[in-house]
Parts: sequence; structure tokens; C-alpha cells
Amino acid sequence: MATDVLDVIRTKRDGGALSDEQVRFFVEGYTAGSIADEQAAALCMAILLRDMAPGELATWTQAMIDSGERLDLSSVGRPTVDKHSTGGVGDKVSLVLAPLVAACGAAVPQLSGRGLGHTGGTLDKLEAVPGWQATLPTERIVAQLRDVGAVICAASETLCPADRKLYALRDVTATVEAVPLIASSIMSKKIAEGTESLVLDVKVGSGAFLPEIDRARRLAETMVGLGHAHGVRTVALVTDMDAPLGRACGNGLEVAEAVETLRGGGPPDVVEVTLALAREMVALAGLPPGGASDPAAALADGRALAVWDAMIRTQGGDPDAELPVAPIRHEVRAPAGGWLRRLDARAVGVAVWRLGAGRSRKEDPVSPSAGAVCLRKPGDEVADGEPLLVLYADDEARVPAALAAVEGAVEIGPEPPAPRPLIVERIA
Amino acid sequence: MATDVLDVIRTKRDGGALSDEQVRFFVEGYTAGSIADEQAAALCMAILLRDMAPGELATWTQAMIDSGERLDLSSVGRPTVDKHSTGGVGDKVSLVLAPLVAACGAAVPQLSGRGLGHTGGTLDKLEAVPGWQATLPTERIVAQLRDVGAVICAASETLCPADRKLYALRDVTATVEAVPLIASSIMSKKIAEGTESLVLDVKVGSGAFLPEIDRARRLAETMVGLGHAHGVRTVALVTDMDAPLGRACGNGLEVAEAVETLRGGGPPDVVEVTLALAREMVALAGLPPGGASDPAAALADGRALAVWDAMIRTQGGDPDAELPVAPIRHEVRAPAGGWLRRLDARAVGVAVWRLGAGRSRKEDPVSPSAGAVCLRKPGDEVADGEPLLVLYADDEARVPAALAAVEGAVEIGPEPPAPRPLIVERIA
Repeated sequence: MATDVLDVIRTKRDGGALSDEQVRFFVEGYTAGSIADEQAAALCMAILLRDMAPGELATWTQAMIDSGERLDLSSVGRPTVDKHSTGGVGDKVSLVLAPLVAACGAAVPQLSGRGLGHTGGTLDKLEAVPGWQATLPTERIVAQLRDVGAVICAASETLCPADRKLYALRDVTATVEAVPLIASSIMSKKIAEGTESLVLDVKVGSGAFLPEIDRARRLAETMVGLGHAHGVRTVALVTDMDAPLGRACGNGLEVAEAVETLRGGGPPDVVEVTLALAREMVALAGLPPGGASDPAAALADGRALAVWDAMIRTQGGDPDAELPVAPIRHEVRAPAGGWLRRLDARAVGVAVWRLGAGRSRKEDPVSPSAGAVCLRKPGDEVADGEPLLVLYADDEARVPAALAAVEGAVEIGPEPPAPRPLIVERIA
Repeated sequence: MATDVLDVIRTKRDGGALSDEQVRFFVEGYTAGSIADEQAAALCMAILLRDMAPGELATWTQAMIDSGERLDLSSVGRPTVDKHSTGGVGDKVSLVLAPLVAACGAAVPQLSGRGLGHTGGTLDKLEAVPGWQATLPTERIVAQLRDVGAVICAASETLCPADRKLYALRDVTATVEAVPLIASSIMSKKIAEGTESLVLDVKVGSGAFLPEIDRARRLAETMVGLGHAHGVRTVALVTDMDAPLGRACGNGLEVAEAVETLRGGGPPDVVEVTLALAREMVALAGLPPGGASDPAAALADGRALAVWDAMIRTQGGDPDAELPVAPIRHEVRAPAGGWLRRLDARAVGVAVWRLGAGRSRKEDPVSPSAGAVCLRKPGDEVADGEPLLVLYADDEARVPAALAAVEGAVEIGPEPPAPRPLIVERIA
């Protein structure tokens, strides 16, 4: 008997593993439109509650890749290595990493998405740079990787169309949080973009998509397993996202902080996470440790910044243009003196989102200039009434909701907080 | 913050109970079209896998009732009592029960559905009677209950529109089998039809919708609880559906067997189940036991048959017309001599369905004349090569699939089978 969509749903609903034939029938049928949204939604919920076995998930991921084209980066002439972050608040690391790792000798093909909810998207951030273009045809992606070594751009519509459709469906059916669906969504796009190796930054803590360490670890392990199953050298770092990373949160503000880091400065936590990821990328790319491929040196001597400038210019942007800053400025002050014990990443992320830097629906525009700057970070000693956070808005009307979001985000006490390691785990 | 459909789905997905507000928001929104099919499908799958608490389910059922009109049978002038069967193979008991219980003094408002899959629908069966009409306006339903005491007709489109929409969705998303959704679907329609009391025939065994006793019992208990919560006196009998009930399976064939039973004859199992259900209905309706309200007497003395004739005539049918019989006849013979130990109800149901008596999609037509007659039943001694089953078809091309379906349905052995009680449990 031919495979039937009800059989596929029933198999997963009853806790079984889908056969290769069932997986391909479903992914192909849903992409082609012969399987309806409501049927896919029922299956996604069953997957969320029943899980998927590794073999099943590998086939599912392969079917998603096979739904579209796969980039061929063999003419780039350098080892290719990409990075993906599961998303955080103030996470501008990708902006620094792509030119930095290119400066070390690899090619970084970073095909990215836009932000949704309280975490920012890399493309949204770069669009704060006047003139910069997110959309590139494939031949220009390949040429830029060859000539500049780094590209950050939008994934083409022909890359994993099954994922595009499934992701939009999961977003409206409360099935985003399924670990196998997250893992296959991320990995199918990264494998289809043609990179040889991949470093994953899986965030954990309040501002992360999966705040608990158990689920973050499972996601990391699942993605590393999928990478290996598809011949992509893959390593994951689980990193802390309980407080915002760095000081700047919001599109243009984060670009400015990334440039500061590329100039050899930048907040210590941004530098630490960037260097840890860069070293993994350089190693996976097979470049020699130290010397010209030492990331710390490439940051210090301006080579990373030079690649940044070239990368921005090649995509039509002006790296010397002033970045927009929103005109309305509100300070959030310390309610007491003492040690800043906590600055909740999710609360700050939601505030920044409400200020206009993020979107609720994928068609919403985002502000390049709104956001927040954390003047103090957990572990700092603060005086009563001292400004902790500055909010930037284009429109006064957006401020009250942002203030409401950060209420309770700050915890001040008589003792300094226990130190939190930034790099929590490494999974290879 | 206002209730949000994603919050509703997430609550159930994560194993929580929906609040009254969430339930009403969902049922009303889905009926009105502001909640999409894919969102409802995700919620149905989450309900199937996470279950519903009794209070939650009572609110859900009430919201389904409130989505449409509720019939007012107060002018009928007799106690009202209905019966619902979860569906079986050869289950023509409703046809006998409605006139029988009316003959005992109650009014039976049987608003029914059509068959889907391997179990037959009461309306499909009655449509084999020349001239008989399934669709009646509400005022004629009330008048017929007053004058004749029994009506079997289609539920109006204005009765539980939420259930109509949800049932169609569940049918294509493999979420039909969720006990709370089955229970609320059945009970919302029965409560909305305005009956004061209700007897449920919950089938168990291979031909039943839920073959296992544990799930059948849970469904029975859930429906009885819902009836009580909504002020409807409700009793359930769990009855055996491992072999077809009676001998005839198929629309016109079953009507003929029902009439034979109404004449005081009929197969012993049909009579036993009919009388057990009829006695429960008479008791729930508050009629005195014995005398004019004794069902066995009403069958024996022709009063039940007289109500049948009146019921059929009032709905435009001719009770004296000959019933159609399909022209093509195939015998299935005993592969050996011995005791007939099993005649699998599901296999026979699937065969009858493939012969044309049932439908796969709700818009398919059904044959009034196709079906099967079981010449032998489990517990009979049979000779090698003796005919066990006769298949009737309008079209020779349908026979091979039916023969394939009954292959393996028959089990013959040297010992008689252990007796199976027909009435398995009573839940009140």
C-alpha cells in the first residue's frame, strides 16, 4: 500500500519512528502542497511530544536539504567554515567572527536569517549600516568568499524551501520548541549552504531560546550529530546568555560595538566568546594554530577590521558612515546601592524589542537606531540612583512598554554574585 | 493580557489544563474562523497526547453546544430518551430501538450521522428504504416525536457547528482517536438535541472504533460524566463487537434484519443487545417496569413494528416497499470443518465497505444494496466447504478487494470458542 499522510501522523503520534519513505513522502508532499498545513501541524506537535530518533532525524534533515538547491563552494579556494548562534540578547558575535576568521585564512559563508521576538537577527543589525544589501545572487556570494573571505547575507528562497514553509507553520502552532525540528531547521540550511565545517553557539540562560541547560545541551548534541551524519565537521559551544552579551543591544548600537571589538577593543565578554568561537572555527578549517591564523592577533593588528571594511563595501555599505542613534533617551537607575547581581537578558531583550529593534511578525519593519546600552553588568558595584541602562527610542510612545519589561530585570544585593563561566560546555 | 491562541496551544502542549477562558476563546475562535485549521490541528494533537481533565472537558463540551442552537423538546409531552452507539459492524440496533422505546411510552429523538470507514451510519441504512427522507426541519422533528414517538433524522447544520468543523479537521489529521475529543463530539450533539436522558452503547472488540476494553471503558466513563455534568441522565453499556452483530451487514440488508427483529424474530444477539439497551432507556425515561412499557412485550405484540411503520411513513418512506438487493453474489466457504471460533468484525466491516456500502470521504455515495450476510456465527459447528458468508455487490469489480479483506477473518478449530458475553459492562 502506498504511504499515506494519516499513516505518517499516526506512526509518530503513537510513538513510533518514521521510515525513510514516510519522512520523504511527508517533506516532499508538504513542500509541494499536496499535504495540508493542518496535517503538518498535527505531525509537528506529535514530533514535539514524541521526539525523533537520530536516524529518522538525519533522513528528515536530508529531505529538507533535498527540497532545494545546495550551494557549491568548491571554487572558493579556501577552507570554508561557518558559525550559527541559537540567538541571544546583545549577541553581535557573528558580525565580528565572519571578518575575523576570514582574516585568519578561512572563508566564512554566513547565510543568515532575520530576528523574531526578543532576539536580534544578524541581517537586521547589518541593515543599520547605510547602503548595505542583504540579498546577493549565488555567483556574488561565491565571488565575495573568494575575494574577501567573508559574506553575511540572506539565504536564497531556493535554499531549503521545506524549512521556510515548516518554520512559518511552527511559528503559528506553538511547535517551534521541538528540539529535533529546531536542529533540522538550523542544520539543513547550514548544510545546504555548502560549508565544510561549522561551529555552533548554543545559548543557555534566561535570554536563550531554550533557557535550561538540559535542553540546550540536547540541542547542541543533536546538531553536532546531524553535522557529522552529513559530513560537516561540527563543534558546539554552549555559552551563557543569562545577561546581555556586551553592553549594546539593538541593531545599530550592536554594529558599533562589533566595530569597536574589531578595532581591538570591545567589552571583555564579547571578546572572550568571539575568540573562543574563532579558535574553534580556525581549528575546524584546518588552519595552523598561532601565527597568521591566530584570532587574537588578527583582532589586534587590524586585519579583521580590514576584512570587515571590504565585506561591508562589497555589499554596497559604507563602513565609515555614522550609524543612526535614536533621539529619545531614558535612563534606568539603580534602585539601591550594592552589587549588581543580575541583569536579566530576556527582560532587556523584550525591552529592546518593544523599543522597535525587533519584530513580532516577519513582515514588521525594525528600527536601526532603537535599543539599549547596559552601563553596568552583573558583578559591578553600583551606587544608589546611578544609571544602569540607557534606553533609546525613535518614539516616546514606545518607552513605557520597555520600562515595564525591564522592571524586575535588575537585582542588587550586598554580596557580589557567584561568577558565571561564559563558555559553559564544549560538544564535539 | 488577552488570551492568545499560542498560549492556549502551549498550555496543553506542556501538559497543563486549559482555563475556561482559554477553552471558550479557542472553540469560539475556531468556529468563527479567526483561529486557523493548523492551530486547531496542533491543539487536537496536544489534547490527544496530553489528555483533558474532567472540568476542562465539561467546559469544552459546553462551548461546543453554545456554538449552535439547542433544541427545545419540552412540548413533546413524553419523557425523552436517546441512544448513541460508537459504531460497529452489522449494528442495526438503533433502527429497532427508536420505535421500540417509543412503543413503550417514551419519545426518542435520534439525531444521527452518516457512516465513515468500516462502520455503517444509521441514516445511510434508512436511506435504503424507498422514499425515506433524512432531513427534517425542527418543527417536524418535534411534531413527529409528539405524534409518533420516534424520529431518526440528520442533525441540522445549526447544531454544534464547532463539532462539525472540528470533526472534519480531526478526520484528516489523525486526531480522531482522542478520548476527550470523541466524548465531547458525541455528547455535545446529544445534549444540544435536547434529550433528557441518554443510553450509550460503547462497542469493544475488533470491529469497534476503540477495540481495547481499557479505552472503551474510559470513553464510556468520560461520556457518562459529561452527561451528568450537563444534567442529562446517562448510562453506558459496553458491548461486544468482536464479531458482526446479527447476520446482515450493509444498508438495505440491515434494514431487513431490523424489521425481522421488530416482527418478533431476528438473530438472538441483536435481540439481546436491543432489549438490554431498551430496558435502560425505559428506566431512564422513568417509565414503570413491565406492563405496557416492557420492551419484550412491545416487540412480541407488534406495537414496536407499528411505530416503525408510522416513523418511516411520516418521513416519506414506504415500509412495505421491497428493499434493494445487489445482483452479484459471492460465497465465502469454510476452509475446513470444525468449530467457527472467530469471524472478525473489522474484516467483515472492511469487506462490506469495499463492496460499496460504506464511504471513505464524506461526499462519497453509498450503495443501498451491497453488503454481506453471515450464515454462520462464532460458536457454530461448520462443515468443510460449507458457505459461511455471502457477499453482495452491484459491481463485480468490487468483489476482489472485499475477498481480500475477509481473508484471515475466519478461524476454525477443533474446539468451540470460549463464550463471550455480549454485554460486557454497565457504567452509570
